[in-house]
Amino acid sequence: MNASSLMSGVLAPVVTPFKDDYTPDRDRYLKHCQWLAAQNCGLAVFGTNSEANSLSIDERMSLLDMLVEGGVDPTRMMPGTGCCSIPDTVKLTKHAVDHGVGGVLMLPPFYYKNVSDEGLYRSFAEIIERVGDDRLRIYLYHFPQMSAVPLGIELVGRLQEAFPSIVVGMKDSSGDRENLEAMLRTFPGFGYFVGSEALLLANMRAGGVGCISATANINPASIDGLFQKWKTDEADALQESLNQVRGTVQQFPLVPALKTIISHYGSDSEWNRLRPPLVELDDTQGEKLIVDLQAIGFEMPGL
Amino acid sequence: MNASSLMSGVLAPVVTPFKDDYTPDRDRYLKHCQWLAAQNCGLAVFGTNSEANSLSIDERMSLLDMLVEGGVDPTRMMPGTGCCSIPDTVKLTKHAVDHGVGGVLMLPPFYYKNVSDEGLYRSFAEIIERVGDDRLRIYLYHFPQMSAVPLGIELVGRLQEAFPSIVVGMKDSSGDRENLEAMLRTFPGFGYFVGSEALLLANMRAGGVGCISATANINPASIDGLFQKWKTDEADALQESLNQVRGTVQQFPLVPALKTIISHYGSDSEWNRLRPPLVELDDTQGEKLIVDLQAIGFEMPGL
Repeated sequence: MNASSLMSGVLAPVVTPFKDDYTPDRDRYLKHCQWLAAQNCGLAVFGTNSEANSLSIDERMSLLDMLVEGGVDPTRMMPGTGCCSIPDTVKLTKHAVDHGVGGVLMLPPFYYKNVSDEGLYRSFAEIIERVGDDRLRIYLYHFPQMSAVPLGIELVGRLQEAFPSIVVGMKDSSGDRENLEAMLRTFPGFGYFVGSEALLLANMRAGGVGCISATANINPASIDGLFQKWKTDEADALQESLNQVRGTVQQFPLVPALKTIISHYGSDSEWNRLRPPLVELDDTQGEKLIVDLQAIGFEMPGL
Repeated sequence: MNASSLMSGVLAPVVTPFKDDYTPDRDRYLKHCQWLAAQNCGLAVFGTNSEANSLSIDERMSLLDMLVEGGVDPTRMMPGTGCCSIPDTVKLTKHAVDHGVGGVLMLPPFYYKNVSDEGLYRSFAEIIERVGDDRLRIYLYHFPQMSAVPLGIELVGRLQEAFPSIVVGMKDSSGDRENLEAMLRTFPGFGYFVGSEALLLANMRAGGVGCISATANINPASIDGLFQKWKTDEADALQESLNQVRGTVQQFPLVPALKTIISHYGSDSEWNRLRPPLVELDDTQGEKLIVDLQAIGFEMPGL
């Protein structure tokens, strides 16, 4: 495996705009992806913050087709493809690999709880065998607060050993700094992304490769700025500045907050719509969010 | 709405047999459904214990088609149709209603956690509107330990008020007796099933209508016996006897335990296979389970 071909840097779990009948708004989606890509932001389409688990398999495939046809570079994409059932995960993963994506972000099957490492291993192994494609690059998605199915060191080790050129990295959204440091000590060179830019500097210093963060949807250039300069004297100050924006946004539920922000800064109320079971911020929350962002001088140039 | 048309009694969340390539074993599945139906057991196909969340949408629809074509009475079926995404839930629900099922068992969208009642209400309302069929009968599926998305009294009340002829009941797998009693006090006449026969007598005395229990896969006639005689002097003793079997089985994870039992009593090792992420019991567990069942005189006549 050519290490230089692996993904790194800043990716956004791209938020998905919806029309008033809750169908994906393809034009706004493509435009947002192009805005992100223009700022050197990779596209982790169909992540948690994309409301991807509220989309059908067909909707996800159709949106990915549309992005590639629209000229977005697939090598900078890491679509989420992990579903509850093996056939669904295989279908999405094959489709993404055939588009030449840089990698896929794979949740474990997340309905059944307290499952064994053996069961999770069999699940990932079966998926890898059914996809049967050497181009496959899997980033395991560890997000115990949402999936309620954690991916521990033993399981990761077993998967890496069995599929060294395929299981190449991880997205860790646990927010647990000790976990990321333990993983990177155990698996040096693993393609380790943190799920929030608040841990970007810690991750890079521990040997990680970047972050896949919700707030990259609205603050991509600044987050990429830290990624570019993490070895410099400016790094701690840049991290501090990112934390200020992040802290302001995450006063509120993330997906509705992001859509409120894009809607406001893009002067486009159509963006402020979520597919159930998520709901938009109420007016008081939305106003406070924008006032607080303005107070710290936040802007979204070029949106 | 004609109350007599509503479902009641004992239903099994039918376990799903798999071939060695993990595809559903259609012949064994039909045979098991026929064995259950012959003992007056309703079929909650595609429930948690059916490994339904490890099946694709197409697999579920194809199995339901096969059962109906195989002569199984759809009015005694309550297929699970609740998925993470609205389009998937609508597709499965429409398909089931078109087959004339007695009702559908609907999980809330279960990926996103800590969602609001407003978001859950919008989700169920959107599904009901898109299905758009007066024959639809929804049993809400409350299973916080597995779905991690509880369905509370306020939400249930709002749904019942908005869709009184459609949201007709609930399956409560929480095991929380206070919850079932509070629900039935608040909504007298609600079609309330408990998720374990251990609470069957309590549920009937509180005004409920039956149980949908994993162990009905192996002990249907005895559980139906209590349902038939719950008003008699024998009821407490029958409940005690059911609890003994239940307690023996749930020493181990339920789905693998059920498959071990069917495999043993049916002398058919092909039954003892699970789709990942679930795994079969190990030999020591399996042997202990069978020895313990034999010690209490458990049998599966006619299997």
